[in-house]
Amino acid sequence: MNQPASTGGEPYVVVSSDTHAGLQCEDYRPYLESGLHDEFERYVAERHAQRRIAEETNAEFVAQWEGDNAEGLLGAYDPVVRDKVMDADGIAGEIIFADGDAVTGQESPPFGAGLHAGQITDPRLAFGGARAHNRWLEEFCATDPVRRAGVALVPITHDPAQGVREIESLAGKPGIRGIMVPTMWHGFPAYGTDHYDDVWAACAEAGLVVHTHSGEADFSSYGDNVAMYISEVPFWTHRMLWQLLFSGKFDRFPGLRYAVVECGSYWIGDLLWKTDVNFGGTNKIKKMGTRMKGLISRLPSEYFGTNVFIGASTMSREEIRRRHLNGIDALMWGTDYPHPEGSWPNTVERLETDFRDVSIEDTRQLLGLNAVDCYGLDLDGLTGVAARVGPTPEQLGQDPDLRTPADATRAARWWLDEYDCELRY
Amino acid sequence: MNQPASTGGEPYVVVSSDTHAGLQCEDYRPYLESGLHDEFERYVAERHAQRRIAEETNAEFVAQWEGDNAEGLLGAYDPVVRDKVMDADGIAGEIIFADGDAVTGQESPPFGAGLHAGQITDPRLAFGGARAHNRWLEEFCATDPVRRAGVALVPITHDPAQGVREIESLAGKPGIRGIMVPTMWHGFPAYGTDHYDDVWAACAEAGLVVHTHSGEADFSSYGDNVAMYISEVPFWTHRMLWQLLFSGKFDRFPGLRYAVVECGSYWIGDLLWKTDVNFGGTNKIKKMGTRMKGLISRLPSEYFGTNVFIGASTMSREEIRRRHLNGIDALMWGTDYPHPEGSWPNTVERLETDFRDVSIEDTRQLLGLNAVDCYGLDLDGLTGVAARVGPTPEQLGQDPDLRTPADATRAARWWLDEYDCELRY
Repeated sequence: MNQPASTGGEPYVVVSSDTHAGLQCEDYRPYLESGLHDEFERYVAERHAQRRIAEETNAEFVAQWEGDNAEGLLGAYDPVVRDKVMDADGIAGEIIFADGDAVTGQESPPFGAGLHAGQITDPRLAFGGARAHNRWLEEFCATDPVRRAGVALVPITHDPAQGVREIESLAGKPGIRGIMVPTMWHGFPAYGTDHYDDVWAACAEAGLVVHTHSGEADFSSYGDNVAMYISEVPFWTHRMLWQLLFSGKFDRFPGLRYAVVECGSYWIGDLLWKTDVNFGGTNKIKKMGTRMKGLISRLPSEYFGTNVFIGASTMSREEIRRRHLNGIDALMWGTDYPHPEGSWPNTVERLETDFRDVSIEDTRQLLGLNAVDCYGLDLDGLTGVAARVGPTPEQLGQDPDLRTPADATRAARWWLDEYDCELRY
Repeated sequence: MNQPASTGGEPYVVVSSDTHAGLQCEDYRPYLESGLHDEFERYVAERHAQRRIAEETNAEFVAQWEGDNAEGLLGAYDPVVRDKVMDADGIAGEIIFADGDAVTGQESPPFGAGLHAGQITDPRLAFGGARAHNRWLEEFCATDPVRRAGVALVPITHDPAQGVREIESLAGKPGIRGIMVPTMWHGFPAYGTDHYDDVWAACAEAGLVVHTHSGEADFSSYGDNVAMYISEVPFWTHRMLWQLLFSGKFDRFPGLRYAVVECGSYWIGDLLWKTDVNFGGTNKIKKMGTRMKGLISRLPSEYFGTNVFIGASTMSREEIRRRHLNGIDALMWGTDYPHPEGSWPNTVERLETDFRDVSIEDTRQLLGLNAVDCYGLDLDGLTGVAARVGPTPEQLGQDPDLRTPADATRAARWWLDEYDCELRY
């Protein structure tokens, strides 16, 4: 943030940093290279079989969710419906990921090239499916590039050079603001190696934010045990963070920005405590200190809000309470529309409940300004939309005289003083 | 804990829940089956080569650590020296893991069968190396089974049936109180499958606590980047917890106890918050709830202190502050002797600094009584030792009138009320 957020009563510019959009699977056909059409037919058949299984095993929930939200769910691909949904939810702008349907998976890009891209083993299908979605996403975002910021799919693990070509072709397209890479690198080189350096250079150059988004995990270790999946999926989703950070990619490519999405934010405070102390505390890591030296040029917490951002989706009240600990300039709220885990279609009620005790300036950062900064969005354009649809501080029941103390971050990051942290290694 | 800990001024019964012991590598030869001696010669040569590398790359630290602590380090395998060290450090009893030398790895069991057991690919070497250490450990702990509780090595991933035979042979041996299994399961079935059920049954029957201890991680993803290793190693170490918990092993084998060691405790509060809410919160996991049903019979937090224990080693002050959040009846303090990451040889000074503001009853639980409970140690015998060597509340500068509020745990676990948690799934 270049200047303090306003403490005034004007409507909030709400940017949902986590939404989803995608066509019904068979409708991707015209966007897909014709050489892949045979494989695509098989994929569509599989998707429909999957849909029938979901309908059977989770019948009650599927019927109720799709029944209650029949019109709004069409906004996954219909821009007119989507605008209505956004307006009703108080949302001015949005960061759009793939996979509009998280319940039965019907709106997954070809071959599962969206949230589960890492599961694809054939690079032809990985890139072909991604490009089909990207072609559609460009059209979709171009319908209103002020409000819609799309995140394209680039399966860099399969072929970094091909990834770079895709990134260069995306650069400057109206409404395309980032790329999503496979969450897991599987048997490919890890993201902290130099194998992908041309990718990071291209993203920094094009101003495209690199993302991982929750979805994939180490499925073979869980069987059908969903509780194990839920416990681990944050780790697999944010694992890329320290690959990039501790390999010095943000020092080598200062314009590189990374955002981890729908992974919560509760884990950040402890991560920053432990890593700030490892790199900067006194009397620590006696046997490992020399091996840490020179890896990074600032304390880990100092990369948050400049190179590292958090698409924290619908934050819990506890996560909102921890906002200064976790990064008041890095956290980006989101609805997860049109997924059922999020706040849609009750976003405004949710904001009223959760932000009542938060200062107006903090609320502005979390709900929108951090996303404007991270993605370089058109703040004037969004402010115009927000004037019509945005909730006001008064509507959220906030105290207009509540101010954020100037030392709120320093006070929340207790370890900086307790361990006398400064970069030592 | 069956009854409240004393608030009186008598010396603390301190049990270090994390110590290490082991022979110099070549000295394991007489304990090793003769059929493995040829392979052992190669291993010993490798270890010495490793030692030379450590001496070169980390010369200053190695020389200083080994110079300053020359006599005390002999306690890794010399029981007379070890008793002196323990006495001087105020320690009555200890839970003993393998790998006495964490600096240059010279005291690793044959073939690395200790903290890095999961890296061994040949089951003959995995079991052979483990059995050699176990034979020595039995002798070592039998020198004083009141003070010394040994954790034997059982590489169950390679062959659960062979693991069961080893566990049965360890049952009832004086001073053997637990087994350590490989931290990671690599390509073998995950610990939550039914593949290892006979192992859990045998451990529950024999009263042997199952452990994972930090050491292994996904090395291939880090190269030589130690900061990535440090960031991930807790995940890999405590990952077994939810494999056992969410697969219902503690319900099927109620006598089964699992302790995760030298993995910190800072991650527990958030883990309990998220998982208690997933299983017990209102209005959560709309699309996954039905798939969680019946996996466990209590809230996850309710397994801590009965089936799940934490060998938290030398806890940070922040972790001590979070003691009621993380489990006042599950956390076990430890020195990590003779490793340099721990408190030895300045344990008493460390206790004076860190426990000043803690109630006497809480201190008794963390420093010893929880370990007595977890491992079924001889409290009368340990109290006799402590009368001679244990630090007193007065020595730690504690306020004798400070009492722990009766609702301290409930108040610290804020989510139980905020989400109205009770087992719903």
